[in-house]
Amino acid sequence: MTELLWPGDERAGEICSTASVLRALVRVEEAWLGILVEFAIAPAAAAGSLTGLVGPDDLPSVAAAAEAGGNPVIPLVALLRERLGEEAALWLHRGLTSQDVLDTALVCCLAEASDHVEDLVAAQARCVAGLAREHRDSVMAARTLTQYAVPSTFGLKAVSWLDGLASATTRLRTARSAMAVQVGGAAGTLSALAALAGPDRSPLAIGEALADRLGLLPARPWHTDRGTLTTLADALVAHGDAWGRIAGDVALLSRPEIAEVAEEVGGGSSTMPNKANPVLSILVRRHAMWAPHIGALLHSAAGMYVDERPDGAWHVEWDALRLLGRRTVVAASQAADLLGGLRVDAERMAARAREASSDLLAEQRSVSSLLPAGADGSYLGVSGELVDQGLMRAADVWEELR
Amino acid sequence: MTELLWPGDERAGEICSTASVLRALVRVEEAWLGILVEFAIAPAAAAGSLTGLVGPDDLPSVAAAAEAGGNPVIPLVALLRERLGEEAALWLHRGLTSQDVLDTALVCCLAEASDHVEDLVAAQARCVAGLAREHRDSVMAARTLTQYAVPSTFGLKAVSWLDGLASATTRLRTARSAMAVQVGGAAGTLSALAALAGPDRSPLAIGEALADRLGLLPARPWHTDRGTLTTLADALVAHGDAWGRIAGDVALLSRPEIAEVAEEVGGGSSTMPNKANPVLSILVRRHAMWAPHIGALLHSAAGMYVDERPDGAWHVEWDALRLLGRRTVVAASQAADLLGGLRVDAERMAARAREASSDLLAEQRSVSSLLPAGADGSYLGVSGELVDQGLMRAADVWEELR
Amino acid sequence: MTELLWPGDERAGEICSTASVLRALVRVEEAWLGILVEFAIAPAAAAGSLTGLVGPDDLPSVAAAAEAGGNPVIPLVALLRERLGEEAALWLHRGLTSQDVLDTALVCCLAEASDHVEDLVAAQARCVAGLAREHRDSVMAARTLTQYAVPSTFGLKAVSWLDGLASATTRLRTARSAMAVQVGGAAGTLSALAALAGPDRSPLAIGEALADRLGLLPARPWHTDRGTLTTLADALVAHGDAWGRIAGDVALLSRPEIAEVAEEVGGGSSTMPNKANPVLSILVRRHAMWAPHIGALLHSAAGMYVDERPDGAWHVEWDALRLLGRRTVVAASQAADLLGGLRVDAERMAARAREASSDLLAEQRSVSSLLPAGADGSYLGVSGELVDQGLMRAADVWEELR
Amino acid sequence: MTELLWPGDERAGEICSTASVLRALVRVEEAWLGILVEFAIAPAAAAGSLTGLVGPDDLPSVAAAAEAGGNPVIPLVALLRERLGEEAALWLHRGLTSQDVLDTALVCCLAEASDHVEDLVAAQARCVAGLAREHRDSVMAARTLTQYAVPSTFGLKAVSWLDGLASATTRLRTARSAMAVQVGGAAGTLSALAALAGPDRSPLAIGEALADRLGLLPARPWHTDRGTLTTLADALVAHGDAWGRIAGDVALLSRPEIAEVAEEVGGGSSTMPNKANPVLSILVRRHAMWAPHIGALLHSAAGMYVDERPDGAWHVEWDALRLLGRRTVVAASQAADLLGGLRVDAERMAARAREASSDLLAEQRSVSSLLPAGADGSYLGVSGELVDQGLMRAADVWEELR
Repeated sequence: MTELLWPGDERAGEICSTASVLRALVRVEEAWLGILVEFAIAPAAAAGSLTGLVGPDDLPSVAAAAEAGGNPVIPLVALLRERLGEEAALWLHRGLTSQDVLDTALVCCLAEASDHVEDLVAAQARCVAGLAREHRDSVMAARTLTQYAVPSTFGLKAVSWLDGLASATTRLRTARSAMAVQVGGAAGTLSALAALAGPDRSPLAIGEALADRLGLLPARPWHTDRGTLTTLADALVAHGDAWGRIAGDVALLSRPEIAEVAEEVGGGSSTMPNKANPVLSILVRRHAMWAPHIGALLHSAAGMYVDERPDGAWHVEWDALRLLGRRTVVAASQAADLLGGLRVDAERMAARAREASSDLLAEQRSVSSLLPAGADGSYLGVSGELVDQGLMRAADVWEELR
Repeated sequence: MTELLWPGDERAGEICSTASVLRALVRVEEAWLGILVEFAIAPAAAAGSLTGLVGPDDLPSVAAAAEAGGNPVIPLVALLRERLGEEAALWLHRGLTSQDVLDTALVCCLAEASDHVEDLVAAQARCVAGLAREHRDSVMAARTLTQYAVPSTFGLKAVSWLDGLASATTRLRTARSAMAVQVGGAAGTLSALAALAGPDRSPLAIGEALADRLGLLPARPWHTDRGTLTTLADALVAHGDAWGRIAGDVALLSRPEIAEVAEEVGGGSSTMPNKANPVLSILVRRHAMWAPHIGALLHSAAGMYVDERPDGAWHVEWDALRLLGRRTVVAASQAADLLGGLRVDAERMAARAREASSDLLAEQRSVSSLLPAGADGSYLGVSGELVDQGLMRAADVWEELR
Repeated sequence: MTELLWPGDERAGEICSTASVLRALVRVEEAWLGILVEFAIAPAAAAGSLTGLVGPDDLPSVAAAAEAGGNPVIPLVALLRERLGEEAALWLHRGLTSQDVLDTALVCCLAEASDHVEDLVAAQARCVAGLAREHRDSVMAARTLTQYAVPSTFGLKAVSWLDGLASATTRLRTARSAMAVQVGGAAGTLSALAALAGPDRSPLAIGEALADRLGLLPARPWHTDRGTLTTLADALVAHGDAWGRIAGDVALLSRPEIAEVAEEVGGGSSTMPNKANPVLSILVRRHAMWAPHIGALLHSAAGMYVDERPDGAWHVEWDALRLLGRRTVVAASQAADLLGGLRVDAERMAARAREASSDLLAEQRSVSSLLPAGADGSYLGVSGELVDQGLMRAADVWEELR
Repeated sequence: MTELLWPGDERAGEICSTASVLRALVRVEEAWLGILVEFAIAPAAAAGSLTGLVGPDDLPSVAAAAEAGGNPVIPLVALLRERLGEEAALWLHRGLTSQDVLDTALVCCLAEASDHVEDLVAAQARCVAGLAREHRDSVMAARTLTQYAVPSTFGLKAVSWLDGLASATTRLRTARSAMAVQVGGAAGTLSALAALAGPDRSPLAIGEALADRLGLLPARPWHTDRGTLTTLADALVAHGDAWGRIAGDVALLSRPEIAEVAEEVGGGSSTMPNKANPVLSILVRRHAMWAPHIGALLHSAAGMYVDERPDGAWHVEWDALRLLGRRTVVAASQAADLLGGLRVDAERMAARAREASSDLLAEQRSVSSLLPAGADGSYLGVSGELVDQGLMRAADVWEELR
């Protein structure tokens, strides 16, 4: 799969690629078959590795066959059964339904994406904390509603970026820690599994074994309750918000008329040799514009669930979740590079603040009559203290910043 | 304000009405003026209540004057100064900026809405838990992709609704507990306040005093980092998802061809005297269709913040937040009534399950060859155990369910 | 109704206010009653004006009573019957259903809004055409991806704005011209009307009479086919796109570091006396951020219609359509003022273009080796000709520009 | 590229695949190079076919190199230059900018998709018209707000589907007929082309030659005015609305408790052998849930354009447009099959209408006192006439239906 029209896509490697989803589907089936043997539901002869039985070359045929039943698990199970020994083929997938496999596989892929995002955000936080510390006292013009406001510091802006990252990562950790397997059977009653398990084995304990094997939480069936998924999706979307703000500030401040920051390597043009465009900022902003609509899609779908499996609302989630996971990793990586290479021209900031001082100190003049003594020269308020506090809060969120 | 086109709107009373927002704006200004006096920044003569100075009758003029500066705080402060004594007028709003007042007032209104929503969800949970308990063993047909699947119970469906409520309320509590005042001054540096406070008083401590007076958390300025707001908004949207699913099931199951549940009081028609429409379900579904788009709007805006106050992204949030708060209360109340009056026809469910038993037991027949002994007659799997576990989880979320 | 949190709302006056919607509902009922008498279905004694029978004071009670049946037409008809003479009360609303009245009333309100928008866009077009003509040769720096690109003219930018307006207004005219009454009866068969009309009168001709009285097109029932509504809504949303681009350019170019344009009257601040914020641009951008989400809501609803009247998808449209109509008028008016007062500093533009000439002429240098003779000094390409063509196209769209 | 998670994706074949986009990019460059030679701007030696120079195998490297400059045209031009003869390499892409090539290529791909959609809708219309004709008098229960309303016919329902298709196809034709090339050069002034063309050749005429070669309209640059694109996108989204409604009705009416229609071939399950799920309806509904969010994304982006090329709003369009084009073809094909194979059980419809006659005739009873004579037995109103008129309107839209 090559995303020609989403520059930077290859940064995500195999994370949430369609091949990865296929691999995850197989991994879930394999883990389950192992569990059926482990619990002596299936005979030992059914044991066997599925690794290598199905691979990227099977993607087109599995995908094409997915339409008949409406999802790719049905043809995948058929294909695996063809390629497995008789006993294994007989027991494969027994007790599960397509949704169990697909939901759990997507959760595995999203968990991997989330972990990468979290790591990349930690790297971003190190950069931003460094910028905040270095520029704690670098004066620059604050701008509100596009116009000069009061003096501020670049350190304080960096801390506001850091706050955005901290809030996003906190949400993601909460959501990540709740990601659970789906094991419900045909309609959430675990009926087939219970029948197969007989009176002496607990179907719920068997579900827990799957969670163990996959490194996820066990859970009662959540096939119709998508709260865990939307919580995760919202947390991913919130990352786009945090990065979009950083990228928006960088794109703006790197305009030639302002030129207070610059990306390390500007992007070229197919025709204008002078160009050094803030390409990473642009691509990150692109992501921030895209992601909220995917969030809305997932909530819209979640609210339209009916019955024990809905007629469309489930199906629309799959690719949306995959793309949200993948592209959030892409944007995380781009934002990390953007921040890692950011050039801050503190002298230019200071020069502009001096140049604009009449505007920037208008508020100060307006309150000066209320003050007993003369007004403070810098009018920077508690910006330094706020930077310090912001760094302390960040150290609470990311251990390595302590 | 009368929302002619959002039936049920009056259920929210004054919560998140525009009059309430105006009141909250005044309340923030009043609290702040009190603090300036308390900290001896303003003289004692500046003290005074703002209560009653501005009321609903001023709404049209404040609203109309809001355009000139782009927000309603500017004309409100002007109006209050006209109506206050000289000293109070001089000190009103000193140290704050419009965004401080507007963000904090909206947070106050949303906190009130959130508290109501949480209470109403607790009431819903009591109903649903009661249904789950009562119908723990009421057999009904599970349906997937519109068709008969396997046997299940209405209790298990109720527990899946309960899980949705539990997940929504958990998110809301987390978000609610982080709601904080906005005190940043013109651009987040607290410069004017620092100037007014002089070297002996801490601007941050003064901000904390505002939080105390308003029952909110203190916070460093979050004027450009909207993570707290989107976390709350997402939690509110997630409620719509949870209710939408309940309403969708009720609307479906109350179709005359199915008729397994019914709303207590059906809605009439302007022309068809036979009608008993599931009106509450319909209106709740309406909400579930609407809310995700507001969530997307708020995320889109959050990602487009630039500078120390953006050129539009802040302004688009206000009414979206107000409506989201208000309408979530409306839907909460409608869902509570819907659930409180729900009639469940367990006999009809059982009759249908018998009638459809050939379909519902097809899976059972397909696994029976794998079983040593005969298959379980009911094929209900662990539905009863899942209901019990669901009720226990609910008791963890809502104390009154213990 | 006072929209405290949507500055500029009062610009729309009564257009698409809830009081206007109520009035339109009454107007539809009145026209229909007249038609029943005109066609001698109802006796002459049933004739009568409904004007004044119900007014803004009834809004709260009608709104509150709307929930019981799920829409405001049911209580409105009941109220009108109470206040009408016996014969008129007996015949009021006969042959219609709530959806007929509500859909038609909303169409009336949207038609009024559309007409205002079209007029305001024509006024905008006059301003922009004037700017394009005046600044046909005013050199300025073109910027792409935030950086200097090549030389261009402000006239060419104005023409690109004009193109946006032309395309929006063309869409709106097409959509406006298709706006039709809804007359279908309980489920689109006109059964009650046919029964009342008897064999000698055509129910469809009676529906046409309603269209005549209301100045709309006649139409077969479109109660489940919302294509006409989404076509109109999309056209309204497209206006936000066109204005958002203008407002974005103005907000950017009026930054103090650029200062090539300015709004006539800048917006003030509650604390910074220096401020002259581009408030109209900001409020127009707000609209452009909001409207697409309403468009998505209406399409989502349209695709979820089922049966002969759906369980929520219809109900969610009402307030969305009203707000979209109203706020598009607000933004149209703000954009008209923004453009009417726009100050263009052509000297500053020229000075900057000279200052940035090394960057702006980089492309020219890169192609110069391919040219037989020396390169053109201005490197403005065919900008002048494009302006002329743009003005000619505008004259095709707006007669007054010929 | 295999869309494992969007069952049915392979129905679109190469339409709007990433390989097709790459091919279209090359085709635009090739056409342009031909034109430069044709107009004697480039020497005859620069002539040459690009066909086969770049193919699907180059997708990964072009995609990966796209990030550096922010779009795939820059590395594609570099690659083509490497593989071309010296003269052709020198002249390739001269006078254009990346946006010209990418916008025009996307328009080519969308035009192809639109043509396929239009053909598939015509096929759908033939089916639906056939159903309407066949079932003009097939009585069934109309349902509103989930409950029985009045008697209607399946023919009338089919005609309402047909109206939706007619309105969508009308919009698409209008939008399709306006699809134009993008030729503007670096910033819309055609400066490089004008320099290369010299005083004797018209850059605009050269742009028209590109339109000719590609079968598109010529146009002044629309690089910042996305009205043409959103008009097309909205028309595509509107198709999802029309199909969503059909699919929703089919999914509902094929529920076992209703069973009045059925898909030709039901979808199976991975575990329940009894299943015959309405899979095509489900997958079409999925599309209808997805598309509106993409429409919102495109409008949001269009309204955020600034400068002569924006910092993100352009980039977010590309993949959204590609997917919208591709998936609309997929859904069109699925809807065509759904309709082509639809089984209508008119007897069951009639039986139910009889069974529910007390409810369905309640309105009739309520108006009967107003009638001189006895009420009409069928109470079908003018349903037959409405079917006839609907078929006539359809014949105006699709010639083959005459």
